[in-house]
Amino acid sequence: MKDNSSTYDRILLAHGSGGRLTQELIRFLFKPKLSNPVLDAFDDAAEIKNFLKKGERLAFTTDSFVVDPIFFPGGDIGKLAVCGTVNDLAMKGARPVAVAVAVIIEEGFGLDPLKKIVLSFSAAAKEAGIYVAAGDTKVVEKGKADKIFLTTTGIGVIPVGINISGSNAKIGDEVIINGTIGDHGIAVVTARNDFKLKSDVRSDCAPLNGLVSKMLGSGSKVHVLRDPTRGGLATTLNEIADSSAVGIIIDEKAVPVRKEVRSACDILGFDPLYVANEGKLIAVAPHSSASKLLTCMRRHKYGRDSRLIGKVVKSPKGVWIKTTAGGLRRLIMLEGSQLPRIC
Amino acid sequence: MKDNSSTYDRILLAHGSGGRLTQELIRFLFKPKLSNPVLDAFDDAAEIKNFLKKGERLAFTTDSFVVDPIFFPGGDIGKLAVCGTVNDLAMKGARPVAVAVAVIIEEGFGLDPLKKIVLSFSAAAKEAGIYVAAGDTKVVEKGKADKIFLTTTGIGVIPVGINISGSNAKIGDEVIINGTIGDHGIAVVTARNDFKLKSDVRSDCAPLNGLVSKMLGSGSKVHVLRDPTRGGLATTLNEIADSSAVGIIIDEKAVPVRKEVRSACDILGFDPLYVANEGKLIAVAPHSSASKLLTCMRRHKYGRDSRLIGKVVKSPKGVWIKTTAGGLRRLIMLEGSQLPRIC
Repeated sequence: MKDNSSTYDRILLAHGSGGRLTQELIRFLFKPKLSNPVLDAFDDAAEIKNFLKKGERLAFTTDSFVVDPIFFPGGDIGKLAVCGTVNDLAMKGARPVAVAVAVIIEEGFGLDPLKKIVLSFSAAAKEAGIYVAAGDTKVVEKGKADKIFLTTTGIGVIPVGINISGSNAKIGDEVIINGTIGDHGIAVVTARNDFKLKSDVRSDCAPLNGLVSKMLGSGSKVHVLRDPTRGGLATTLNEIADSSAVGIIIDEKAVPVRKEVRSACDILGFDPLYVANEGKLIAVAPHSSASKLLTCMRRHKYGRDSRLIGKVVKSPKGVWIKTTAGGLRRLIMLEGSQLPRIC
Repeated sequence: MKDNSSTYDRILLAHGSGGRLTQELIRFLFKPKLSNPVLDAFDDAAEIKNFLKKGERLAFTTDSFVVDPIFFPGGDIGKLAVCGTVNDLAMKGARPVAVAVAVIIEEGFGLDPLKKIVLSFSAAAKEAGIYVAAGDTKVVEKGKADKIFLTTTGIGVIPVGINISGSNAKIGDEVIINGTIGDHGIAVVTARNDFKLKSDVRSDCAPLNGLVSKMLGSGSKVHVLRDPTRGGLATTLNEIADSSAVGIIIDEKAVPVRKEVRSACDILGFDPLYVANEGKLIAVAPHSSASKLLTCMRRHKYGRDSRLIGKVVKSPKGVWIKTTAGGLRRLIMLEGSQLPRIC
């Protein structure tokens, strides 16, 4: 691997040795796509000028990505790793600043798919407006990992006056979602091809910091932001209800689900309410702010299908769904493991 | 796994689902050992009050740990993950503040070894004076990872006036190491038992931030700090020589190597200069500061065997060793992969 034309087409154990081949991997593959002054210092730790002004707080979050397959309609593990971390920062109302990325690669993994992943990582980082400040590469023997795992850790700035948390839902608040649910989970499970299922569903994988910035800049009050990833809408709503010690009632008719997602779920025996999303957020906001917030969200490309889907109530506690038949059914947290390695 | 007495003794895929079992793992295993106000908020991102004063900079570093075996004399993957990250922060002269930890676990991994790892992680974090701000748990199917991989990402504060980098070595500077080399690599390779080798060598795995703080507090000038982990002393010296565009000449007689490490290396055909360390640092400092620095280092428990081992020169460029026979031999970067999965 020299001057971008490689003498190797696969990853060797020596690429993780910390020696010459690790340096080559960095110089010829990672650096050309991710270069910036902070990363390029290549010291043991990156040095970042203080980006926090008086009263601002640091947002800090980490996630490993082990999605299978690593390429799927609408994204891949590189894009997913950026979006997952950027969205976790955005859910605190933070402006994402930088990300550190640690890669664990299985010996024998191709340099071509690795380049593809670095490219899409870099494109997603650019869209989200963040830079890569630090990185690490480890290689394990063939059969000791599954192709490639990424861990991304993000830092961001929580502006003065922003106080968003899962524990801030108030009785009477409205619950909003920015579009259809279950797209990511169904796109990944279809790509996995275990079920010989065909569908045109693409993952909704997207960085939501732009949308959140518009929402918070609109002057509307927002109490809670959460992205319903693993465990889906139902599990995330349960986390909010628990943390805020309230009840949440969702209107089944109002929850947007693509026809193709619904059919795939029917075939697989899944409930879309528990299927993972990677470009969705739940916003809980006071009734007085909800319609202004919806208008603002619908103007953003990742919020066009935003909908009011429910309400925060004093009782019953927990999460409930008003079914299309008119009944009230309890939605518990995800039990067991519906779709392993969805992110 | 309820009230600390588990109904499961192994990790299931569902522990990584984001649903009920993930919550149980957090509540009954991680939280009791790692709890602190920042972590306990359990939002999508941690919120940390600004810890940077005017002129201070943020240090930021990430590393995945895939060491095999996960338990070895002198440490385990939990202690290693903390020390590795703390030391990378310390090598910028930073005071470590907090760490985020992401865990990838193989389905079927025992809860007992997991508890042991969490305990030693927590003990090392305590010694280093840092707290866990954020975490993530993923589980992959049996055979898709090797027991457990950890990724730790650290943040710290670089005080005003501290400017330490691999590119700061100056001609005439002295090169110092804080003790014997190769202990970690030999301890791990012995524990691996592939070579039926017996030795009493323990890993030197230790958080070095306390030692660095004493060094910088002593008023001595320090130009470079680096921890010679993967690739060993020789590779790290090459990185410094490259970044600073200087030569470095090491005196073979002066480099401290334990007798047992030397014998093990002889049997295995390794050169101790390329064997990994996890509690060692290389300091490059002006001649005028070196003896004061050595005195200060020798007073610290992780610096008792500190030694002057070499000098920074204008030429020849690269890294050279004055052999005991009196010759000058070039030390290049580690080629190939001497000891995969050493950290």
